Amino acid sequence: MATVTLLRDDELSPEAAAVFADIRATRQTDFVNNFWRAIAHDPALLARTWGSIKQVMGPGHLDPKVKEMIYLAVSIAHGCDYCIHSHTAGARANGLTEPELMELLAVVGMAAETNRLVAGLGVPVDDVFRR
Amino acid sequence: MATVTLLRDDELSPEAAAVFADIRATRQTDFVNNFWRAIAHDPALLARTWGSIKQVMGPGHLDPKVKEMIYLAVSIAHGCDYCIHSHTAGARANGLTEPELMELLAVVGMAAETNRLVAGLGVPVDDVFRR
Amino acid sequence: MATVTLLRDDELSPEAAAVFADIRATRQTDFVNNFWRAIAHDPALLARTWGSIKQVMGPGHLDPKVKEMIYLAVSIAHGCDYCIHSHTAGARANGLTEPELMELLAVVGMAAETNRLVAGLGVPVDDVFRR
Amino acid sequence: MATVTLLRDDELSPEAAAVFADIRATRQTDFVNNFWRAIAHDPALLARTWGSIKQVMGPGHLDPKVKEMIYLAVSIAHGCDYCIHSHTAGARANGLTEPELMELLAVVGMAAETNRLVAGLGVPVDDVFRR
Amino acid sequence: MATVTLLRDDELSPEAAAVFADIRATRQTDFVNNFWRAIAHDPALLARTWGSIKQVMGPGHLDPKVKEMIYLAVSIAHGCDYCIHSHTAGARANGLTEPELMELLAVVGMAAETNRLVAGLGVPVDDVFRR
Amino acid sequence: MATVTLLRDDELSPEAAAVFADIRATRQTDFVNNFWRAIAHDPALLARTWGSIKQVMGPGHLDPKVKEMIYLAVSIAHGCDYCIHSHTAGARANGLTEPELMELLAVVGMAAETNRLVAGLGVPVDDVFRR
Repeated sequence: MATVTLLRDDELSPEAAAVFADIRATRQTDFVNNFWRAIAHDPALLARTWGSIKQVMGPGHLDPKVKEMIYLAVSIAHGCDYCIHSHTAGARANGLTEPELMELLAVVGMAAETNRLVAGLGVPVDDVFRR
Repeated sequence: MATVTLLRDDELSPEAAAVFADIRATRQTDFVNNFWRAIAHDPALLARTWGSIKQVMGPGHLDPKVKEMIYLAVSIAHGCDYCIHSHTAGARANGLTEPELMELLAVVGMAAETNRLVAGLGVPVDDVFRR
Repeated sequence: MATVTLLRDDELSPEAAAVFADIRATRQTDFVNNFWRAIAHDPALLARTWGSIKQVMGPGHLDPKVKEMIYLAVSIAHGCDYCIHSHTAGARANGLTEPELMELLAVVGMAAETNRLVAGLGVPVDDVFRR
Repeated sequence: MATVTLLRDDELSPEAAAVFADIRATRQTDFVNNFWRAIAHDPALLARTWGSIKQVMGPGHLDPKVKEMIYLAVSIAHGCDYCIHSHTAGARANGLTEPELMELLAVVGMAAETNRLVAGLGVPVDDVFRR
Repeated sequence: MATVTLLRDDELSPEAAAVFADIRATRQTDFVNNFWRAIAHDPALLARTWGSIKQVMGPGHLDPKVKEMIYLAVSIAHGCDYCIHSHTAGARANGLTEPELMELLAVVGMAAETNRLVAGLGVPVDDVFRR
Repeated sequence: MATVTLLRDDELSPEAAAVFADIRATRQTDFVNNFWRAIAHDPALLARTWGSIKQVMGPGHLDPKVKEMIYLAVSIAHGCDYCIHSHTAGARANGLTEPELMELLAVVGMAAETNRLVAGLGVPVDDVFRR
């Protein structure tokens, strides 16, 4: 159903193969998911996207589990089914429990509801919320 | 700019006034922000929305700061300027630091980018991501 | 704040002026709102859009008030502030009462919440809902 | 394809079972669709969502058919395939005819088109549309 | 999976059949894709939509390939899987190469990322960008 | 109105100042727009975003004007007012004429309309559009 083919390992350019090797080394698994096999058609895009993901989702100020939750929340709001599946798996792999997942969904739903109420009413920002 | 008037305290119905009293007691502040003053035109909507927010954002499995971050991430994805301002303030009030805020934004941006790449490529969900 | 100028009546091309005349005749008012003054830079776009609006929002199977409500609901979901203001006004002009407006908003908010819950859970369509 | 299992009746907690009983009694059918079977993992979310739906979609100021149409319009704008299928069925069950459905879609499409034209042009809200 | 049946040629009304004939003549192919078979339930919607597509996507100021690219970019941002498939095909038919497609996707992803960063930060429009 | 301050040149960290210097050298202008002044609070995010923009929007397979048009189309679909203003300016700076801008908007609007019609009808992808 993809609009491009999903590249097998033996179809990768040398540049793409190097990125796949780094994905495997970083994640400590041989498995490389379909997203990377699709964007591998453009080695520069592949290298840039993997480099950014590695930097943004790597060690920083926020807990990895929290970052996966934020990623998942945005993916739900954008209606990206693939991303919802991969980042629900990613959040679980980082320790998200089932009750936490359901609570995350409740917050996402609540935000969606009030986001639209606010838009429909054209509510002006309170002065106290301004920096 | 609102499509309805923002109700002052002396314009509230008794049902709406009771909700405002609970908002003040729960949040331990006299301040009630514009969102509640707009939906107060419909006391049932006001009571239901406040009750849901209180339940969803109250004590549960996730940290309050994390819930505010999820709420903020969804509000950004939906482009709700009011909600972005109020929940950035809410997250800060729950301890979000400036470096954490910037990292949250980086995750949101990264998710947005890959969400759209995935959509454009029609990437099929890997079997391993299915329950 | 517009990215193009809003055309005054004396700046219109003859083709655009003819569309403005039809807008005024159809709506029985001299007032022409900013949307038309912005797209008037492209007389073909103006004529096509007005022709479509006139056909779609004109007499048909659904009540004009219901059509304005649907238009408003979509505009809220898309976060179009201008459209929210113009179609809230349009719905009121077609008889929408304040309690009805608040109820419409409650339905929109409820839909937004469950839309995102469904996406987050990847709920498969029940067979009974398929044609 | 769901990210959680869909709970069968014999897997429900007592709290969730009580909500299912109320869904069946209210709708006067034994059938409970997948959405409820997915959120039943969190009985509090299930109870709250069902309570809200029952209140919002129940008797009020707007006709049930109109409410289903608004719900459907929002679901289309959010691209929620499950919700589109379930609320098209819901609207039909409330009397929506096929010509009315097609007209609803025409209004939704028209709104989407002009929402984006307005955004692209940055059209400022006319004073007359402000309250 | 459609919410309406897809009409076969022998099920079309005379008005719809006339539009199908024009689609075939204009595109110089006997093939008529599912979108038109779905909206053919409403001959007026079919005629209007085809007329608009023919005008907008026909000869004008922009290259047909560029127009297909813009159409595709919007379809990705809206998460319309059908439209992504049909307009990726359309862009390729108008000469879009695979490296160009990947570059288009990179631009779409980049725009999505910065769109959300801007929203999250509430960045005010620079005076120099105003007309 | 921003949720963070917009950093002046004398408030930048050395890493951020280096990026600003490269922005100025690359664009051959002293002007640095607000977006960069907002994300400069996170020098790593600033450096990564600027590096990506420079790569994606720089010389490649597509014309710079076409890339700005794609960027603008996505920004309109996402309702990002800041991005719409900055990339309308960017497209004009790359040679976009006023008739071309209006035609771009017409294509964006048309795509939005049919995207939603397709979603509302649940149109299945034609086999011919699959790779």
